[in-house]
Amino acid sequence: MITSTSNPRMKEIIQLRKKSRMRTKTGTFLVEGLRMIREIPKERLVQLYATEEFLKKHRKEPIPGTEVMLVSPEVFAYISDTKTPQGVLAVVRQSMFTQEEILEKCSGKSGTGTDRPAHLLVLDNIQDPGNLGTIFRTAEAAGVTGILLSRDCADIYNPKTIRSTMGAIFRMPFVYTDDLPGAVNSLKKHDIRVFAAHLEGERAYDEEDYRQGSAFLIGNEGSGLRQEVAACADVLVRIPMEGMAESLNAAVAAAVLMFEVSRQRKRY
Amino acid sequence: MITSTSNPRMKEIIQLRKKSRMRTKTGTFLVEGLRMIREIPKERLVQLYATEEFLKKHRKEPIPGTEVMLVSPEVFAYISDTKTPQGVLAVVRQSMFTQEEILEKCSGKSGTGTDRPAHLLVLDNIQDPGNLGTIFRTAEAAGVTGILLSRDCADIYNPKTIRSTMGAIFRMPFVYTDDLPGAVNSLKKHDIRVFAAHLEGERAYDEEDYRQGSAFLIGNEGSGLRQEVAACADVLVRIPMEGMAESLNAAVAAAVLMFEVSRQRKRY
Repeated sequence: MITSTSNPRMKEIIQLRKKSRMRTKTGTFLVEGLRMIREIPKERLVQLYATEEFLKKHRKEPIPGTEVMLVSPEVFAYISDTKTPQGVLAVVRQSMFTQEEILEKCSGKSGTGTDRPAHLLVLDNIQDPGNLGTIFRTAEAAGVTGILLSRDCADIYNPKTIRSTMGAIFRMPFVYTDDLPGAVNSLKKHDIRVFAAHLEGERAYDEEDYRQGSAFLIGNEGSGLRQEVAACADVLVRIPMEGMAESLNAAVAAAVLMFEVSRQRKRY
Repeated sequence: MITSTSNPRMKEIIQLRKKSRMRTKTGTFLVEGLRMIREIPKERLVQLYATEEFLKKHRKEPIPGTEVMLVSPEVFAYISDTKTPQGVLAVVRQSMFTQEEILEKCSGKSGTGTDRPAHLLVLDNIQDPGNLGTIFRTAEAAGVTGILLSRDCADIYNPKTIRSTMGAIFRMPFVYTDDLPGAVNSLKKHDIRVFAAHLEGERAYDEEDYRQGSAFLIGNEGSGLRQEVAACADVLVRIPMEGMAESLNAAVAAAVLMFEVSRQRKRY
């Protein structure tokens, strides 16, 4: 049993929790709590850590992986990201996708057979870890086929973000890119129509047809889409607002758009 | 200038920041930051506190209220809820609504003249302060006419919640109630149709007609609606989900429903 916080493995976990750079370097990230840990694809589990108390309590429940490393409750409290830790934590391998892989899974045209029309999100400088996780969670539910992120978005592997994804992190294809305008322009070559969520959009979001391949550009929480990114869109769409509301939360705006796609594709 | 953290007014502010009980007792709450402070209705401003630096920087900007109490930067850092305070904070009077007042502003039937059909949210045990604030913000944008909250919802006057409302707190009528099922039943007597957002809803949310008075029951983040609350609904509606997603974030689910109402009422 690991009983010291100066154990090298524990030190590494603290680094993985705190430092995006460390997560990138090792190609791993942390997942906490039974519910999330159950959703880890087996082949991506690197190491599982748990307290004796946790193992006793959940003796009958299926936990992925065979070898669990025991950690004392004191040390677990030290490595955990939550105030009241459940006592189970995993190191998990990051997944890697290319933009091509994301596009292979769908098509621009309203597809037949295994092909489904693309339903993509393109995130420009989303900063709030909770928002980012919520966008992933919502995207899975709305049938999004993949997510492109500008390099300066928050780190999807941040523990708070991972928690907010509610497991979508393991299933949603995504890729960070250094050249978001370039990436968006290449979507258009695949017959994907690109819509920018924009306060000055000339069209209301529900006046457009999303049944064929569609991508949505979603901008930063405070400042919206960068001009050079918005300029890549085929159409700027706005979500009509009442009252004195000036804008919507980024995750909320994305949700309204994604579920309009889902609604249109199911209904017709 | 207030230069001591043991100044009685500063002590009171700390209490207002930390304790819901204190906010209820005094009937006031705190608002921080220039953007939010500009939206405070004049008659509700009790006292404004600022640093000299803030006043110099914003000399030309309209700040409500005439008397500003100066606070030293050190003391301001102590009373502020944020890591990098702007240097302006207000004590604001809480607003009080009754359910009757909320209903007076709208009608069950698709109204004419000043009447607009009710568009209500009913929140059952929403716990996350950020979610609650985001729901208020989204509600204003979607044209919601009022919000009913169960007594055990998070405190809307929590500083984090206030921030997330982005000013909607000053404009959205709301009321906490000890008897949520009773409140919901009284809505029905006003010809308002009551929809429960429910994972086991028999109808997809977009198959219903929301052009007449409508209310939506939104449940707790983890456990959903309490059975006795869901039982009051006329219809359980679900938001169809794809992938392995089990549920949506409460603020996201509420947003999808609210904007479907907004979409239907505008389109037809």
